[in-house]
Amino acid sequence: MPKPLILITNDDGINAKGLRALVEIMTDLGDIIVVAPDKVQSGMGHAITINDTLRLNQVNTFGNIKAYECSGTSADCIKLAKTIVLKNKAPDLVVSGINHGSNSAISILYSGTMSAAIEAAIEEMPAIGFSLCDMDHNADFSHCKSFVKKIALQVLKTFLPKGVALNVNIPAKSNHPIKGIKICRQARAKWKEEFIERKDPSGKSYFWMTGDFINLDKGEDTDEFALTSNYVSIVPCEFDLTAHHAIAILNDEWELSSDH
Amino acid sequence: MPKPLILITNDDGINAKGLRALVEIMTDLGDIIVVAPDKVQSGMGHAITINDTLRLNQVNTFGNIKAYECSGTSADCIKLAKTIVLKNKAPDLVVSGINHGSNSAISILYSGTMSAAIEAAIEEMPAIGFSLCDMDHNADFSHCKSFVKKIALQVLKTFLPKGVALNVNIPAKSNHPIKGIKICRQARAKWKEEFIERKDPSGKSYFWMTGDFINLDKGEDTDEFALTSNYVSIVPCEFDLTAHHAIAILNDEWELSSDH
Repeated sequence: MPKPLILITNDDGINAKGLRALVEIMTDLGDIIVVAPDKVQSGMGHAITINDTLRLNQVNTFGNIKAYECSGTSADCIKLAKTIVLKNKAPDLVVSGINHGSNSAISILYSGTMSAAIEAAIEEMPAIGFSLCDMDHNADFSHCKSFVKKIALQVLKTFLPKGVALNVNIPAKSNHPIKGIKICRQARAKWKEEFIERKDPSGKSYFWMTGDFINLDKGEDTDEFALTSNYVSIVPCEFDLTAHHAIAILNDEWELSSDH
Repeated sequence: MPKPLILITNDDGINAKGLRALVEIMTDLGDIIVVAPDKVQSGMGHAITINDTLRLNQVNTFGNIKAYECSGTSADCIKLAKTIVLKNKAPDLVVSGINHGSNSAISILYSGTMSAAIEAAIEEMPAIGFSLCDMDHNADFSHCKSFVKKIALQVLKTFLPKGVALNVNIPAKSNHPIKGIKICRQARAKWKEEFIERKDPSGKSYFWMTGDFINLDKGEDTDEFALTSNYVSIVPCEFDLTAHHAIAILNDEWELSSDH
């Protein structure tokens, strides 16, 4: 039986520690191709490169493993990998990460890691984005291994509903062992931004965005609840942004005759 | 009674024709503040600027109307507008656009126009993204006026469900008058990309992304169906990417004991 073909990407760039951790885990599970951004693409959301050129260069970052660096975003990496590198042969699994920092709750919107997974899901490839909830520069990815492997094997075994990608967040390593894995919904949380204003050498203002994460959602079925309870959270995600509950409300309230 | 305060942005940049059209329409409805990207930010999805500085400069692009250009993305514009320009005073309405090109169906994921509207919705501001389904360089925005005005007035009058933004797409101008407005769901369509490979002067390869839009969704309640039937489409959108239907499936199929 041929080994599964696994496509790996991320948004922290081809030299990121989390990508190396993911590549090492996946070598146990199948044949691997890496197509990752040549620089950090964090916070790029579902950006794609439509007004500029794209570069794709083979690199030997991972020794004998076939790997490419791409000048574009994480979503670009999936598109280029599918069309150019894999010549439209579908991989058995797409994994993205391991992101250096949480992509739970609202952060999924801004996440390049998850944009790659969602892009793959649109193309009907089974896809998982992995993130470690630890922003520490020296974050330890070692405890992720057993969870990443278990979840990837599960997806290879049972597949996923069509168009669905998984957003997996793993608590930071601590003295308390992780309790298990929970399937969750995305918490209704948000970022409260602050902007730090500074002056450049010529006296003109510029800003750094900073802020605090605020969880307004008290539900016990959310990714945030699972993570703060020291569980790995899995949110099944899809690319339908329709607020289905609002359709009837708008149809009732609005007077949409064809005159205007 | 004070006039409503309307915040305007876009993703085609502060000098775009569609932004000027939107500003002209909104001057009839309220007091206006414009905060728009200083360059084209199309295809940027929900990107935000987290690893770089941001600039915000007041400009006189619209005469007496208070306007700022921002070095960041459309989502950055909303965050900066809220915090720095409006000093956390909530506007009565946020409008984004009019985008030069469709943001129907899957395109919403890549759309800076809609990322601004969704960002505003997260902050519980009533928000609408407007797009004209016409990529022609000389696209005529004049027929948008009555629809944009009608929809904006409706939102000012009846508000929107909490956290919901509207994705409004308007058919290109043609000899056939637009039939009306329909509330829709996002069509399950996708882009089939192709990459055109070229050589730079030193002989190295680079790629341009191109592709065709493919609608796989035969439903008559979709934005694509409305648009091809010559209606303006309105999709209420929210920022929850959870595939709620998949939660039970995964809980049933997966064996998630706490051992791993």
